[in-house]
Amino acid sequence: MVGSVGNGLADLGAGAVSMNGVGKALHPAEAAAAAETLPMELEPPEALVAAAVEAEAEAKREEAANGRREIVMGRNVHTSCFAVKEPDADDEETGEREATMASVLALYRRSLVERTKHHLGYPYNLDFDYGALAQLQHFSINNLGDPFIESNYGVHSRQFEVGVLDWFARLWELEKDEYWGYITNCGTEGNLHGILVGREVFPDGILYASRESHYSVFKAARMYRMDCVKVDTLMSGEIDCADFQRKLLQNQDKPAIINVNIGTTVKGAVDDLDLVVKTLEENGFKDRFYIHCDGALFGLMIPFVKKAPQVTFKKPIGSVSVSGHKFVGCPMPCGVQITRLEHINALSSNVEYLASRDATIMGSRNGHAPIFLWYTLNRKGYRGFQKEVQKCLRNAHYLKDRLKEAGVGAMLNELSSTVVFERPKDEEFVRRWQLACEGNIAHVVVMPSVNIDKLDYFLNELVEKRATWYQDGISQPPCIARDVGVENCLCGLHK
Amino acid sequence: MVGSVGNGLADLGAGAVSMNGVGKALHPAEAAAAAETLPMELEPPEALVAAAVEAEAEAKREEAANGRREIVMGRNVHTSCFAVKEPDADDEETGEREATMASVLALYRRSLVERTKHHLGYPYNLDFDYGALAQLQHFSINNLGDPFIESNYGVHSRQFEVGVLDWFARLWELEKDEYWGYITNCGTEGNLHGILVGREVFPDGILYASRESHYSVFKAARMYRMDCVKVDTLMSGEIDCADFQRKLLQNQDKPAIINVNIGTTVKGAVDDLDLVVKTLEENGFKDRFYIHCDGALFGLMIPFVKKAPQVTFKKPIGSVSVSGHKFVGCPMPCGVQITRLEHINALSSNVEYLASRDATIMGSRNGHAPIFLWYTLNRKGYRGFQKEVQKCLRNAHYLKDRLKEAGVGAMLNELSSTVVFERPKDEEFVRRWQLACEGNIAHVVVMPSVNIDKLDYFLNELVEKRATWYQDGISQPPCIARDVGVENCLCGLHK
Repeated sequence: MVGSVGNGLADLGAGAVSMNGVGKALHPAEAAAAAETLPMELEPPEALVAAAVEAEAEAKREEAANGRREIVMGRNVHTSCFAVKEPDADDEETGEREATMASVLALYRRSLVERTKHHLGYPYNLDFDYGALAQLQHFSINNLGDPFIESNYGVHSRQFEVGVLDWFARLWELEKDEYWGYITNCGTEGNLHGILVGREVFPDGILYASRESHYSVFKAARMYRMDCVKVDTLMSGEIDCADFQRKLLQNQDKPAIINVNIGTTVKGAVDDLDLVVKTLEENGFKDRFYIHCDGALFGLMIPFVKKAPQVTFKKPIGSVSVSGHKFVGCPMPCGVQITRLEHINALSSNVEYLASRDATIMGSRNGHAPIFLWYTLNRKGYRGFQKEVQKCLRNAHYLKDRLKEAGVGAMLNELSSTVVFERPKDEEFVRRWQLACEGNIAHVVVMPSVNIDKLDYFLNELVEKRATWYQDGISQPPCIARDVGVENCLCGLHK
Repeated sequence: MVGSVGNGLADLGAGAVSMNGVGKALHPAEAAAAAETLPMELEPPEALVAAAVEAEAEAKREEAANGRREIVMGRNVHTSCFAVKEPDADDEETGEREATMASVLALYRRSLVERTKHHLGYPYNLDFDYGALAQLQHFSINNLGDPFIESNYGVHSRQFEVGVLDWFARLWELEKDEYWGYITNCGTEGNLHGILVGREVFPDGILYASRESHYSVFKAARMYRMDCVKVDTLMSGEIDCADFQRKLLQNQDKPAIINVNIGTTVKGAVDDLDLVVKTLEENGFKDRFYIHCDGALFGLMIPFVKKAPQVTFKKPIGSVSVSGHKFVGCPMPCGVQITRLEHINALSSNVEYLASRDATIMGSRNGHAPIFLWYTLNRKGYRGFQKEVQKCLRNAHYLKDRLKEAGVGAMLNELSSTVVFERPKDEEFVRRWQLACEGNIAHVVVMPSVNIDKLDYFLNELVEKRATWYQDGISQPPCIARDVGVENCLCGLHK
């Protein structure tokens, strides 16, 4: 079998493309890159910047056939992947293979530089320097099992992980001997864990979440076979507690598990935690609810925002999760999940093979991420984060004001650095700036890596392009009153 | 709030220990390290090598109180973590903080070197050189969403991911347009995904898994609220298909979802896939079953073992998962999950925010791992892996033979490089060599990073220590006949 499989291998890059039988014209960026030819006529990474949107078209047709609203899907990567090629017998002597791989990596690195420079839409802080940690990249660091109990595998970084967890437990005001937590792979894992803890505490509980909650919350409900009730939102994107009350009263016999958003994905809206608790307690749910706070982005920013309602375990919440690669910044996705120790003892089981406890969603766990987080927390500290949060909020206001001055409808929630505005007409522009879109709106999340210069660069380009999109006087900017309110819309009707 | 939290921060290292109020005598390794004092009297990482086994003792008491078999738990990390300390106002000027952090990292690096040298128990290939990829560590690479459909976030590595997936699909004989898959965070995520797909295909299916299956399989059943039936195993650790048949016949009205082990965690046993399929088909389950193959370690080795039954999608299986940090070797845990495309279309939902599809368990996904895998697959190729597998199997035989010659009961399954043997009496020895243990047995997993020299080093130390453990003539090596069969046991009774 091995031989026959080996024979079927495609050439690196170019081969993979031909195998897919996709022919397409070169985008200018591609053409430029193609000038720098590689030994094996590699499909350059820049090709990904071009608009080969087959999958998109297919998705559109499919969506249309289903009668649903059309979602613009990204490109199909199968047309441009770097195939793995079986080494030739003499590769070790000629060194040609190593050279080719080095070329691929160098080109890829260049594309990352370009893509990093034009990134605005996702809440990732791309500004970090972990040079001091490069020395650790050669180790297979794995925190498998529980963070607090060493496993027999010695190449771990629990000392760093627990230091980081202590820091977050302190931030959210839970005592060292009363909390449990771990460093997750991403915000989704935090939500999956928090909601699972909630379900184990109240096995027949109903999950309530506003319809603007992250998609992982609804995925959790499906995975865990939980009844899930979607609650309406206000224009800001916050949960509508009047609707929440109505829905609670329809299900009075079952406990409530609530996902509270500390910064929604699209509008950066912060659910009113105090009002959620009040609604629960005043409607007969006292001691019959579990609250998970999804603080993916804003969970780490809100402690540093003056007058913001605080997320704290002094309130009756069960868990909080936050992403590590967002505001902190980290080369790989990660997150922090903190919950009450009492809940975990019910959830976990001891695993002899690990000489540890199994209370996490994943088994093996990335041991590098805790060191990245530890490093940044130590360098910046509370004061450093405070400064950065203030800078982000300032810059977000700048962006919103400049957009409105330019006649572009825009909204910025009071506690947020997420600026929502009219969706740019051209998908190529959306892709270039990596904007996240939903319906007629797009957003920019102002992170520490986004400074005024970058915003100006973006604004100038947007204004210039926009002039060409709407120059014929026939096509009009979309109305976004339904998304952000009449007062924030600057369409033909509302301006 | 910020100020008050900041004031409560403990000093780095030493402070954290004193906060926990744990005083303990220095282990020789610690004493040596302590000579190299740090500016802040840091608790050295070597301290972790010492036996401060508080948590262990507590776990023992708890287990005993429950009347269950005692599990030896690892140490409580809270006693030795590196606390995060708020920077002093003048830190930037003095540079003291940077110096301290550099010292912590240098010491930690030393401990990783030592721990990597003495690692034998977990199936991780610690032998890799990814120096060429260090240039990418500065980027926040995230493959959020589907591997085949680009999201709007441009700093990704899907070109590499899909290349790797194609390689695995080819290895397991599934056509490019018939498979779907992704690079996971670990073996557990692969199992969680495979079993979830099975459940979505057969919502009322019962999950069957041998009792020697990985603990993540039973975690999945609990998470997904599936009925789960544990099937007995043979002495080798393989699933007992006679018992499987009995249990199938007790549940004829419900479809079957089966976890098939391609290498069990403890004994490295390979379930007989063909016999499992035959048992299903002959007992009325034709077209009413879904098989997930958990190939965490051996899924990548078995294609290169002569005469081994092959894992292939030409057989009626639904999904295969394998770990990337095991046989391949990778600085962080990762894995590969391959399934049939037809199943995924039912599972997934489109997420506009991502401009992509949501069919993975996690949301944000580590974009570095695919590049590590791509790099190794390209460098080694099928031929390289084949050589390494043969070397591992040879070395495993060497270890088993030498153990038996030394009077130590041991077993090695025919298709495996996992050598099971009598559990060393001394927990300190177990920890030093990072052996995974269960009941009276321990194991060494012979990986490419484990050569004859390392095995000799281990064997000599074991034989020497063992002479002291049993020199009084009163204590005896444990009987492991129940675990590995009378023929492999060399206890007082069976030798």
